[in-house]
Amino acid sequence: MGGDRGPNAVVAGIARSAKKNPDIAFILHGPKAELSRLVTRRKHLRGRCEIRDATGVVRMEDKPSQVMRHGKDTSMWSALDCVRDGEATVAVSCGNTGALMALSMIRLRKIPGVNRPAIAVLWPSRNPSGFNVMLDVGADVRADEEDLLQYAIMGASYARNGMHLERPRIGLLNVGTEENKGRAELKAAHDLIEQAAPGGGFDFVGFVEGGDIPGDSCDVIVTDGFTGNVAIKTGEGTAKLIGDLLKEAFKFSPLSRIAALLALTSMRRLQKRIDPRRVNGGVFLGLNGTVVKSHGSADATGVAAAVKLAFQLAQQDLTSKIRARVASAAIPEQDAAEETKVAE
Amino acid sequence: MGGDRGPNAVVAGIARSAKKNPDIAFILHGPKAELSRLVTRRKHLRGRCEIRDATGVVRMEDKPSQVMRHGKDTSMWSALDCVRDGEATVAVSCGNTGALMALSMIRLRKIPGVNRPAIAVLWPSRNPSGFNVMLDVGADVRADEEDLLQYAIMGASYARNGMHLERPRIGLLNVGTEENKGRAELKAAHDLIEQAAPGGGFDFVGFVEGGDIPGDSCDVIVTDGFTGNVAIKTGEGTAKLIGDLLKEAFKFSPLSRIAALLALTSMRRLQKRIDPRRVNGGVFLGLNGTVVKSHGSADATGVAAAVKLAFQLAQQDLTSKIRARVASAAIPEQDAAEETKVAE
Repeated sequence: MGGDRGPNAVVAGIARSAKKNPDIAFILHGPKAELSRLVTRRKHLRGRCEIRDATGVVRMEDKPSQVMRHGKDTSMWSALDCVRDGEATVAVSCGNTGALMALSMIRLRKIPGVNRPAIAVLWPSRNPSGFNVMLDVGADVRADEEDLLQYAIMGASYARNGMHLERPRIGLLNVGTEENKGRAELKAAHDLIEQAAPGGGFDFVGFVEGGDIPGDSCDVIVTDGFTGNVAIKTGEGTAKLIGDLLKEAFKFSPLSRIAALLALTSMRRLQKRIDPRRVNGGVFLGLNGTVVKSHGSADATGVAAAVKLAFQLAQQDLTSKIRARVASAAIPEQDAAEETKVAE
Repeated sequence: MGGDRGPNAVVAGIARSAKKNPDIAFILHGPKAELSRLVTRRKHLRGRCEIRDATGVVRMEDKPSQVMRHGKDTSMWSALDCVRDGEATVAVSCGNTGALMALSMIRLRKIPGVNRPAIAVLWPSRNPSGFNVMLDVGADVRADEEDLLQYAIMGASYARNGMHLERPRIGLLNVGTEENKGRAELKAAHDLIEQAAPGGGFDFVGFVEGGDIPGDSCDVIVTDGFTGNVAIKTGEGTAKLIGDLLKEAFKFSPLSRIAALLALTSMRRLQKRIDPRRVNGGVFLGLNGTVVKSHGSADATGVAAAVKLAFQLAQQDLTSKIRARVASAAIPEQDAAEETKVAE
């Protein structure tokens, strides 16, 4: 219910997913009468969509703390509880990101050993897959070296299961690639991630820079939620500005208008490649259950893309895999602690 | 001497500037024999270019600390001392940014009241001027609330004098526009900048996001050097990726190749609008003397753009104006301190 375009776009999106994927079913959360009306109009949803009545709505301007206290009747709460209770395999929401993360933390709880969950997104890149993973892009504005290590482990799991990369290459975002550069916590994180790489099933390429986010020097970019959030919004804004200037350039003269017509297919191909709707979905990592956050402004195409991503991750059982990876990364430390105990 | 393309690109660039601007003269720093040879070949430089022999070169991989200790014989040191001694009005360098900032700090010294100098760049935006100012983009990886306030004051001076905006609009970069969002130092900086706006000759639009860097909601984006550096490199990388994909798209079919030919003028116009060489030049603010850092990979066009920017800022006497603004912003604090004294 919380998306900018209301439940109509959501139902249109899941209908599209249902048509393409026979192995998918939905539990929709929101005011029953309204949703029933929308669902019955879509033949692909017939018999594959259950509705849970929830009258409250988390609005975009609601503060996470309010929602945590008074949000029990909302569609967001109801959807997360469905995952918590094992009725749903994964939750998808177009709503308020801060509230969704706060509610996910209290309803699903963090995986043992994870201090800060993270939001991971796919970003258009020069890699063969066409994308990179970046995390955290805004779950938390701070991250210390332990958090960054966990982001590396969780990001590697995401790339392995969501992008089918056997041995993802991890980069740590900094302002230079030299090892002596940047903030103290980054130097500490550099060493921790380097040590974890051999046992963690990933390669560590060391420090990377902003230009590597759309590049091909690594598959997963690890950073704190403040920097990650600014980076993706800067990238999105720049891409949009170029797109608009391009449209303007093509309208400039009769000749350029003809050129635009001739270039239509090529331009559509390019647009498809970098269309943010096609990579729609921030994935919450580090919780007991997968949550996919779709853009608030997602249309049917965007919602369907988020559902597709959610389906893939659920099929791979990403949550269990991350739980195992985080646990095994913690073992050396426990061993060390036990050894110390024995030595004492 | 420190640019990626060597002194040839620099001399070609200043020759271009000399041709366009009769009010400009140069003092070149580097190995005299080599530079003389290059300069004599350019007729526009005849009688307008003095050469100072400097045999040492700061290389891209040199550490700032080394250069500060052992860099006395370098062209970079010689160029900065020329500004320090009043022989040159402004220094331009294509060399190692870290070393240039470190040397600028010890040779030119900080303006009284400035804690951390900043590097400001112009960024393509939707504003009428076509650009925004962003600072800091990498002088220092940290900035507290006082630093951010000084960046706002210095950035406003830059926009006023370099872009002729009478009352620049300042935005403080954050992960959301609500006042309760982000890190503690950002909330403190928000209040400091808001208080300084009326007396500082600028408007404060509050928090802005990454998408506002190429946008039109403000003219100056204030942030710490870590975030700023990541943001510009992400933006540059994204723009370059789109440009390359666009080229690919136009090569795809015979039809799109014809389209590319027809669209050539439009595309050139667009390219000119966002060509990073045309906005080449990070400006060091907060020092007793203006220093313009050109891209290391700058060609003649890039060098000429950096020289043009340096000329404009020197003509407006940016350094004196920043000195006055920083001093007047510090006055209320002094007043308050004196009032306290009186009250005691």
